[in-house]
Amino acid sequence: MLMYSIQEIAEDLGVAFAGDPSLMVHGVSEPKDAGPNDLALAAAPRFLADLAIGQAHAAVVAEGTDWRAHGLNAAIFVGRAKLAMASLTKRFDSRHRSALPDIHPTAFVDHSATVGPDCAIGAFGFIGAGAVVGGGARIGAHVSIGENAQIGANATLFDGVRIMPDVRIGNNFMAHPGVVIGGDGFSFATAATSTVENVRKSLGDQGDAAAQTQIRVHSLGSVRIGNDVEIGSNSCVDRGTIRDTVIGDGCKFDNLVQVGHNVQIGRDCLICAQVGIAGSSVIGRNVVLGGQTGVSDNKIVGDNVITGGATKVLANVPSGSVVLGYPAVKMADQLKINRSLRRLPKAMSDIANLKKAVSNDQKNT
Amino acid sequence: MLMYSIQEIAEDLGVAFAGDPSLMVHGVSEPKDAGPNDLALAAAPRFLADLAIGQAHAAVVAEGTDWRAHGLNAAIFVGRAKLAMASLTKRFDSRHRSALPDIHPTAFVDHSATVGPDCAIGAFGFIGAGAVVGGGARIGAHVSIGENAQIGANATLFDGVRIMPDVRIGNNFMAHPGVVIGGDGFSFATAATSTVENVRKSLGDQGDAAAQTQIRVHSLGSVRIGNDVEIGSNSCVDRGTIRDTVIGDGCKFDNLVQVGHNVQIGRDCLICAQVGIAGSSVIGRNVVLGGQTGVSDNKIVGDNVITGGATKVLANVPSGSVVLGYPAVKMADQLKINRSLRRLPKAMSDIANLKKAVSNDQKNT
Amino acid sequence: MLMYSIQEIAEDLGVAFAGDPSLMVHGVSEPKDAGPNDLALAAAPRFLADLAIGQAHAAVVAEGTDWRAHGLNAAIFVGRAKLAMASLTKRFDSRHRSALPDIHPTAFVDHSATVGPDCAIGAFGFIGAGAVVGGGARIGAHVSIGENAQIGANATLFDGVRIMPDVRIGNNFMAHPGVVIGGDGFSFATAATSTVENVRKSLGDQGDAAAQTQIRVHSLGSVRIGNDVEIGSNSCVDRGTIRDTVIGDGCKFDNLVQVGHNVQIGRDCLICAQVGIAGSSVIGRNVVLGGQTGVSDNKIVGDNVITGGATKVLANVPSGSVVLGYPAVKMADQLKINRSLRRLPKAMSDIANLKKAVSNDQKNT
Repeated sequence: MLMYSIQEIAEDLGVAFAGDPSLMVHGVSEPKDAGPNDLALAAAPRFLADLAIGQAHAAVVAEGTDWRAHGLNAAIFVGRAKLAMASLTKRFDSRHRSALPDIHPTAFVDHSATVGPDCAIGAFGFIGAGAVVGGGARIGAHVSIGENAQIGANATLFDGVRIMPDVRIGNNFMAHPGVVIGGDGFSFATAATSTVENVRKSLGDQGDAAAQTQIRVHSLGSVRIGNDVEIGSNSCVDRGTIRDTVIGDGCKFDNLVQVGHNVQIGRDCLICAQVGIAGSSVIGRNVVLGGQTGVSDNKIVGDNVITGGATKVLANVPSGSVVLGYPAVKMADQLKINRSLRRLPKAMSDIANLKKAVSNDQKNT
Repeated sequence: MLMYSIQEIAEDLGVAFAGDPSLMVHGVSEPKDAGPNDLALAAAPRFLADLAIGQAHAAVVAEGTDWRAHGLNAAIFVGRAKLAMASLTKRFDSRHRSALPDIHPTAFVDHSATVGPDCAIGAFGFIGAGAVVGGGARIGAHVSIGENAQIGANATLFDGVRIMPDVRIGNNFMAHPGVVIGGDGFSFATAATSTVENVRKSLGDQGDAAAQTQIRVHSLGSVRIGNDVEIGSNSCVDRGTIRDTVIGDGCKFDNLVQVGHNVQIGRDCLICAQVGIAGSSVIGRNVVLGGQTGVSDNKIVGDNVITGGATKVLANVPSGSVVLGYPAVKMADQLKINRSLRRLPKAMSDIANLKKAVSNDQKNT
Repeated sequence: MLMYSIQEIAEDLGVAFAGDPSLMVHGVSEPKDAGPNDLALAAAPRFLADLAIGQAHAAVVAEGTDWRAHGLNAAIFVGRAKLAMASLTKRFDSRHRSALPDIHPTAFVDHSATVGPDCAIGAFGFIGAGAVVGGGARIGAHVSIGENAQIGANATLFDGVRIMPDVRIGNNFMAHPGVVIGGDGFSFATAATSTVENVRKSLGDQGDAAAQTQIRVHSLGSVRIGNDVEIGSNSCVDRGTIRDTVIGDGCKFDNLVQVGHNVQIGRDCLICAQVGIAGSSVIGRNVVLGGQTGVSDNKIVGDNVITGGATKVLANVPSGSVVLGYPAVKMADQLKINRSLRRLPKAMSDIANLKKAVSNDQKNT
């Protein structure tokens, strides 16, 4: 069991504390659920009252909090609660430390694959010919790593992750269960001009294109992922057509995200759950795409863009924009549109009345 | 092969029947596809004419139907067709009865795991150290159950399901292929105030926050699932940060659903396909979320709420509401807005004309 | 390594070429990334300038291009670039040719299953009792094929694909990692009239229906898939209730697509990423559903329909329509509505001003 003193934790966070420096805590919890050995997280003032419900003797509180009034023996003062949370939850996360690294007896590692030192490979893991896995990897059950794939140091691949052939990934990669990196792109051609091509030009008219069979464009490219990237459960990143799909350093993806072929994503982006980015689109640096955002194919989303939840990006978005809606417009504008929409049915009858009034007026004059 | 008499089925359904009580049927089908030994399902009047196309001698029909006119030898009368369908399809579902329960020779059960009586475990199944699986489980191929996970009696886990460590699940749990229960939450902190924090306050302005690295908040919580819960293929339920993500008794999820960290869902909810519920939101009891609904983080959706397809919930929703749209508003209001929208382009030119007319009028007077 | 002469490639494409017919190329690439042995793809005029950046001696260019001006030794002239791309990428795709077909020593094939000639089965593959796999199959790691499933010739099943029991699939099927074919449908009944039934009738009023337990409707049907179908990573196709869910010949699905129980899809449809089609809906032939499109249950989408990205289909769509929006309307109309929406907040104040002006006017007269 992991146990730390209040002093140790405060010093690690680089913040002040008060009370008993040697008080030991063995976990973190919400104030109302806290046991006597838990460090309660009560940095948000609304949680302070819950300290009386739980049994914590120590808590993380906002700077300036009168901690003694809440019956505590020790308090750690933080300015930025979520940052403290990142540090504390890392410290108390024992999940990947307990087991000694080893290769499960049921795992199969091809004789031509290279696995670095200090790696664990779970039950029924498969590592294909020529694949390279860096040192310190933690690989769950039923993971498959395809031929000639390369993964850097300290990877964490949870159960059922699929790293397809030739994919190249940097250090400290983390993929949650069911992630697929390097499935084929979705790209098809037709012998003659298709209805979709006509619609893209005409914005609504199919023209006279006949129904046609779809002819497959194969994916000769791969996927290239930088360092410190994390991908959520059951997300998919497709390989490129003749160049690689690229994900920059420090990107974090939530679950069920779709990244199409040839997409380029800059560094340090946050891609929330169920986002879809269609083929060949380019996403800048430090972009945040809210949950269920969609980005059409061949679009450019600039650096530092933020999209609100469920935004549908149908055109390029300039750097620094904050957008919302379907189609995406500036968030402030969309909020005004939304307010107007609520009053729209009434406005429609106002217009009808105005037309009558003006028409009568004109008749009368 | 499963075979039942008309009388047996009618008594099981608790409804009346007519004609030959001993007529045996060995399956159910749509009237037009029915073979001579099938029980045709013709409770909806539009299906009655199809009885002449198929070969059924017996059918389920609405009360009061003149069954003899359709050439049947027996008829079962139901008031509520779908309820009868539930009972009949259960009766004729032979899929999980045929095989004797057993542990496939390729499966690996850790010596410290506990597997109850009468369990089947499929090919290459993996059950980790300290895990507990209740009696009567039917576990498919390539399923992994993590360390110290606990699953109640009579679970059905189809191929490739991932139950991650420490997850706790009640009785009669059913998970379809590729389900992930207990992947890590998507939660990150930045050292200084981030652009997203600024946008949430300003509703549109990033402020002058610089680009920053995302620092991981670890998931120390787990997932707790009640009794009689069913989760559809490739759906994901993330573990909580310092408390558990919770799914109440009787909830049913369709495929590709995303449930974020810390989410609480009350009992008997229906969550349709591709719904996403972001972190820390609370969903009441008996809620129905239509397909592709999105719920933002930290929202409260009250008891008995119903959302129409693709509704995007960006604010709390009071109990008992029926909502639709992006953003969600009362369904009746959204339908009015939608009707108005169709006439909006015309209304815009009406407004322009009115402005001209009134302006001229004012000049003239 | 695959190497072809310019003449060979041009003849295969059925197009003209110029320059050195015997010049050999061993891959295709974008002009700027091209090595000296690559065939550069520069059919779009914007790529021509990049030929000077890369090292290609040969390129695919648009008809009429002055290829010598770009320092090339040979050029292949194409009218339809993407069609040429389909042919060229197929020719240079070596991924599934390198390995001799074989059954991995860790795979498990039930003694009652039938596997055709020339098949490869990957690590830890499982083929259940009575299943039939046609000749020439390429099956990845951790694939499971359920009891009595039937798959035609030349299937490609990538890692972790789940073909559930009794599913029937035609020739040349391709499924990317994590695909689930034949999970159970999402269908539940309640003992008495439910709130959802009331809302569907009233379009917004739950009535006085009480909260109820959901009773499962079992899936007795299966999934039937035609020839030449491709399904993207982690997509799900549910089995039918008492008939089969059906996908026609030549359909191509992108990743994370959801197809509900009983759905019927006609031939040669393109279903883009994250599309959801709810239970019992019918999709015609040659339909294109843009990314994140949603189709409500029990709807009919006619032949040759095209939906733009994120379209939500809440009502039937006539054949040949091009639609966009939530709810779906004709694309041309939606684009007009979108333009109007941007001016709506201003229009609302115009209306307010008009009301004042007219009201004053009426007072004055």
